Amino acid sequence: MKLFFSPTSPYVRKVVVAARELGILDRLELVVTSASPVDSGAPIQGYNPLGKVPALLLDDGTVLFDSRVIAEYLDGQAGGAKLFPEGAARWPAIVLQALADGMLDAAILTRYEQVLRPAEKRWPEWVEGQMNKVVRGLDQLEQRWTGHLSGPLDIGCIAAGCALGYLDFRYPDLGWRAERPALASWYEGFAARPAMQATEPKG
Amino acid sequence: MKLFFSPTSPYVRKVVVAARELGILDRLELVVTSASPVDSGAPIQGYNPLGKVPALLLDDGTVLFDSRVIAEYLDGQAGGAKLFPEGAARWPAIVLQALADGMLDAAILTRYEQVLRPAEKRWPEWVEGQMNKVVRGLDQLEQRWTGHLSGPLDIGCIAAGCALGYLDFRYPDLGWRAERPALASWYEGFAARPAMQATEPKG
Repeated sequence: MKLFFSPTSPYVRKVVVAARELGILDRLELVVTSASPVDSGAPIQGYNPLGKVPALLLDDGTVLFDSRVIAEYLDGQAGGAKLFPEGAARWPAIVLQALADGMLDAAILTRYEQVLRPAEKRWPEWVEGQMNKVVRGLDQLEQRWTGHLSGPLDIGCIAAGCALGYLDFRYPDLGWRAERPALASWYEGFAARPAMQATEPKG
Repeated sequence: MKLFFSPTSPYVRKVVVAARELGILDRLELVVTSASPVDSGAPIQGYNPLGKVPALLLDDGTVLFDSRVIAEYLDGQAGGAKLFPEGAARWPAIVLQALADGMLDAAILTRYEQVLRPAEKRWPEWVEGQMNKVVRGLDQLEQRWTGHLSGPLDIGCIAAGCALGYLDFRYPDLGWRAERPALASWYEGFAARPAMQATEPKG
C-alpha cells in the first residue's frame, strides 16, 4: 500500500501514528507529496480529486481517502476493533476524532488565511471565528475528555494528540496549556509515545 | 433525540435523508438552529464547540457530531450495517461519502468567499482552487462511481445525492449535467426519492 504523505500534515500524522500503534507501518510505502488548496495540477489530484493528503493507494489500484477512512481501513487490516471499537465505546472514539479533526480544519483555514492569502485580502473576523472554534475545542477537551483520553488508546486519542501537536507546531504562542492543566498533563505523556516522537512535524 | 438542524445545510440533509431511509425519522426532534463561521456566540456552540450543524443530542445528554458520526449512529439505531455496510462493501461506501463531503466542503468555502466575506477581501485563486475540487469530484463521480451509485443504497449514495442537490441549490449555473450524462441520469432518479423530495433546500 502506498500512502501519499506530507511530513507537516496533521491528518497524515494521524494515519501514520495509527499505523505505528497498530503495528503495520511496515506495510505502508510512504510517498512524499505536496498539496495546496490553490495549486491545480498537483499530482495528488490524479489519485484524490479533492487534492488532499493523506490518500492510500491499494495494490489493486483502489484509492482510499480521507484520513478517517484510511485509519479505519488500517484498523481492519490489523484485525479490526482496535482503534475503532465496536459497541458503545465506538461513539466517543469517533466523536472525539470529529472534534479534533474539526479543530484542525479551523486551525488550517486560519493558517491559509495568514500565510497563503495575499495580505490585503485577509479578513480578521474569519480568523477570529476559526480560532474561536479551536479555543472552544480545547476547552471541551479539558472539561470533558481527559478521562476518555486517559483510557484505552483509540482513534479519538490519536486525533486529539495530533491536533495538539499541530497547534504546538504552527501556533507555538497560543499558550493552550496555561488554563488547561489536565489536558497538558495528558499530552505530555502522549507526546512521548514512540509513534508520536517518530512523526513530530518539522518545517 | 434532538437533531440541531438547518434547512439549507447539505450535511444536515444527509443525516435527515439517512434517518428517513432507515425509517427512524420519527425518533428525531428537529431543532432549527443557525450556524455561521463568523458568529461566535451562537447557541449551537454550547453543544458542538465547532459551532456547526448537524449535532445530535441524545437523551442522556451526550452530543454526537459531525454528520458522518451521526449518520453511522442512526444506522446502528436502525439495526446496523444498512447504510454503513460491513466487510468489503464498507470502503467504497465511506470513500464515496468522503468524496461527496469534500466536494461540499469546497463548495461551501467558495460560498463563504463569495457571499459572506467583504467584497474587497475576496481572492479569486482561492475560489478557483476550491471549485476545481468540485469539478474534479464531479468528473470522478461520472467516470468511476455511477455503477456504485446504481447499486444498493448506502451512505455514499446519499452523500453524493446531497452534494449534487447543494450544487443545484447554490450554483444553478454550474451546468454540471452537460458533460456528465450518466451522473445526471442517476441523480434524476435519486432526487425523486421521497426522502430527497421531503428535504429539498429552499431559501
